[in-house]
Amino acid sequence: MLKELREQVLAANLELVRAGLVLYTFGNVSGIDRLSGLVVIKPSGVPYDRMRAGDMVVTDLEGNVVDGSLRPSSDLATHLVLYKSFPAIGGVVHSHSEYATIWAQAGKSVPALGTTHADYFHGAVPVTRELTDAEIGGDYVLNTGKVIVEAVGNKDPLAMPAALVAGHGPFCWGRDAGDAVHNAVVLEMVARMALHTMALQPNSVGISQALLDRHYYRKHGAQATYGQAGRAKVGH
Amino acid sequence: MLKELREQVLAANLELVRAGLVLYTFGNVSGIDRLSGLVVIKPSGVPYDRMRAGDMVVTDLEGNVVDGSLRPSSDLATHLVLYKSFPAIGGVVHSHSEYATIWAQAGKSVPALGTTHADYFHGAVPVTRELTDAEIGGDYVLNTGKVIVEAVGNKDPLAMPAALVAGHGPFCWGRDAGDAVHNAVVLEMVARMALHTMALQPNSVGISQALLDRHYYRKHGAQATYGQAGRAKVGH
Amino acid sequence: MLKELREQVLAANLELVRAGLVLYTFGNVSGIDRLSGLVVIKPSGVPYDRMRAGDMVVTDLEGNVVDGSLRPSSDLATHLVLYKSFPAIGGVVHSHSEYATIWAQAGKSVPALGTTHADYFHGAVPVTRELTDAEIGGDYVLNTGKVIVEAVGNKDPLAMPAALVAGHGPFCWGRDAGDAVHNAVVLEMVARMALHTMALQPNSVGISQALLDRHYYRKHGAQATYGQAGRAKVGH
Amino acid sequence: MLKELREQVLAANLELVRAGLVLYTFGNVSGIDRLSGLVVIKPSGVPYDRMRAGDMVVTDLEGNVVDGSLRPSSDLATHLVLYKSFPAIGGVVHSHSEYATIWAQAGKSVPALGTTHADYFHGAVPVTRELTDAEIGGDYVLNTGKVIVEAVGNKDPLAMPAALVAGHGPFCWGRDAGDAVHNAVVLEMVARMALHTMALQPNSVGISQALLDRHYYRKHGAQATYGQAGRAKVGH
Repeated sequence: MLKELREQVLAANLELVRAGLVLYTFGNVSGIDRLSGLVVIKPSGVPYDRMRAGDMVVTDLEGNVVDGSLRPSSDLATHLVLYKSFPAIGGVVHSHSEYATIWAQAGKSVPALGTTHADYFHGAVPVTRELTDAEIGGDYVLNTGKVIVEAVGNKDPLAMPAALVAGHGPFCWGRDAGDAVHNAVVLEMVARMALHTMALQPNSVGISQALLDRHYYRKHGAQATYGQAGRAKVGH
Repeated sequence: MLKELREQVLAANLELVRAGLVLYTFGNVSGIDRLSGLVVIKPSGVPYDRMRAGDMVVTDLEGNVVDGSLRPSSDLATHLVLYKSFPAIGGVVHSHSEYATIWAQAGKSVPALGTTHADYFHGAVPVTRELTDAEIGGDYVLNTGKVIVEAVGNKDPLAMPAALVAGHGPFCWGRDAGDAVHNAVVLEMVARMALHTMALQPNSVGISQALLDRHYYRKHGAQATYGQAGRAKVGH
Repeated sequence: MLKELREQVLAANLELVRAGLVLYTFGNVSGIDRLSGLVVIKPSGVPYDRMRAGDMVVTDLEGNVVDGSLRPSSDLATHLVLYKSFPAIGGVVHSHSEYATIWAQAGKSVPALGTTHADYFHGAVPVTRELTDAEIGGDYVLNTGKVIVEAVGNKDPLAMPAALVAGHGPFCWGRDAGDAVHNAVVLEMVARMALHTMALQPNSVGISQALLDRHYYRKHGAQATYGQAGRAKVGH
Repeated sequence: MLKELREQVLAANLELVRAGLVLYTFGNVSGIDRLSGLVVIKPSGVPYDRMRAGDMVVTDLEGNVVDGSLRPSSDLATHLVLYKSFPAIGGVVHSHSEYATIWAQAGKSVPALGTTHADYFHGAVPVTRELTDAEIGGDYVLNTGKVIVEAVGNKDPLAMPAALVAGHGPFCWGRDAGDAVHNAVVLEMVARMALHTMALQPNSVGISQALLDRHYYRKHGAQATYGQAGRAKVGH
């Protein structure tokens, strides 16, 4: 069932490890088949080096396991909220990648301090508010998804494909699982550069709206001038 | 004698190196067989790439060598204090891993600034007081163990499986030698993220008690919901 | 056409990756054949691991593609401004290498704080002014080249083979493509050390003019005493 | 001539690279044969991956090349001053390793903030004064050696086997070339931890004299208790 999507999701999980965003089993990636409304997600607590496509768990959008013998990632409910709220996205990734997590722990959004940021994120990457004790004591994983959606607000989720959960870490998304991981890897680099930029220049307010737009739109949308015709619009 | 434990302790020592926590021969791991009260520990000053299971040294809880032709790690006496004081633990590790050592050198406990921390350490990782000149001039290695026990205080050692020795570096422990190393690796990551979080947000006080409890208890104890049934409760 | 230069430019692009200055397809290197006035540059958005010498794009100094089936790097126009303005240079590299980018994002030139810097850059590595909205909205890539030339001012481009574009990242150059990459790699190291030096000693003003000259001129020019006779003047 | 020493010096140069202390050809190691008073040193500007034992250059203590067809490292005169001033040492290394260089650029000695430091350096690692313009304009490389000797002062060079040249970088030494490199690698780690410790705790003054002595002397001298009988006294 969903053989190709399972393989995509496995590959995306392994790419997350290769990119250095994962320690032990921290992190999880999922993908969705929008036609059937089925989600494929990493199982919980299985070491990456033994993970097979067949270990991926298939659930519906209510979190019922439809196929697979293992338990899905314990963050599944957050992924599902994002898929329901952001119809254009096809993949979600959660990691504890270090610098994105540092910004999340500091409770600060990552300002757009340069064009590397602008090439991927059309503005500051938002941080959620802290969850209340009631939200933590209740359906915590689901509520995590809700504060992410609240933080993204009325931004286009594909133009702002990430948010930081305060005191926790980043969630990223994209057109598919691989794209979501790509955004997660760039977010980590952008977060690391932003932290050191603030140390060097504490008054940094970021690049101008004109520069932000120029870079964002030369890689995204109908006017994009990057890459080769018929290929994904990434690269320099 | 204790063939399996020797192999576990060797594997845990090598995992410490693989995880990047060790420069040259800095660091040592031990494990205990609670039935016989015998401890297996890394020999002193033997390069990791030549170390064999047979090089591991077996001692009793008083530090007498029971088996093995090499000298035990010079930190043995600290390990023994921890085994005697914390009956639930089965492995101990000492390293000079960089960021945990930085917090130790700064004489500060590592505050619980995020859920990565809370998944492993149920509160701030404590730092010991400085040893007095008399304690340093006396049975220094033993006294190091005593200030660790003092710093852990009445916390459950398995819920707070680490402490920083002021001006020195971290000691970690766990259910067995491998678990102790796992905790040491996570402590290093948590210490690194905490340092940069404080730089970005000097007023950080850490996550709420509710969030700390939520994360700690979803990975530990009878209510744990992580991982697969019948496997260790780790992962995401 | 220009087979040897294509191979040099490919090798220089791959060296940029090996040196850790590139994430995904961020970064591009070009070389020029001064006799014919033709430029060889990396194609846009092609993954490095599949890149062949035949993928390199040949253009004239006005940016017309003369040979090659792929689109040239989207930064081509900046490279061309540099080749026209600095007749002595033979290669140009653009990267988003982290620490050089951090200084660019902070809008600060990198001061000459040590002899590592002085061995390659005869003074502070300049940062450009920010582009105006009109410059961004107009021929942005060309205007990026113009502000670099403005920032270099009346310095000898081979004695100051780099500049930081504010809010963006570094451009470096050299006698050929390989030399430009070498300068980019050293700039990254120098930028990283400078950032941490300023953190440790915020009042740093840099080394004396005498020391700057001593180091720069022992590696460059007729009086150079480095390396072996008949070899490039680098090394210690 | 001096075949074994050439091989030792080559191996020490390559270990410096493996330990990550070297970019391109920055860095050089030498060793001395005290009986003949001959020094073996790395040639200038030869890439490490092509370096052979036969490329090492043999000079006398006045810097005359006695054997070898290549030019010696341009830092030779500094090495010679150290061999003449410190009769107990057998090897010297110069690198631009990043964190030791950062302290050198900041013009600060590295305080003894922890036991990792105390295990190798019996007190703060000193920084030299800045050279005067006359010293820079004169016999610069020789004068670099002189300010190092001045900075070490009346300390035992084997108990303080390193100094930072202000605005430049570290020189380290030891009983032989391999020992000097070992000290250089530890200095880099100690310098990195010290920088971050100062960031976390700006008032750090370092460990007590009692702790400094305890650690230094348990690894050095007649009372050393580290390692195995008949082996070098290193390790934990």
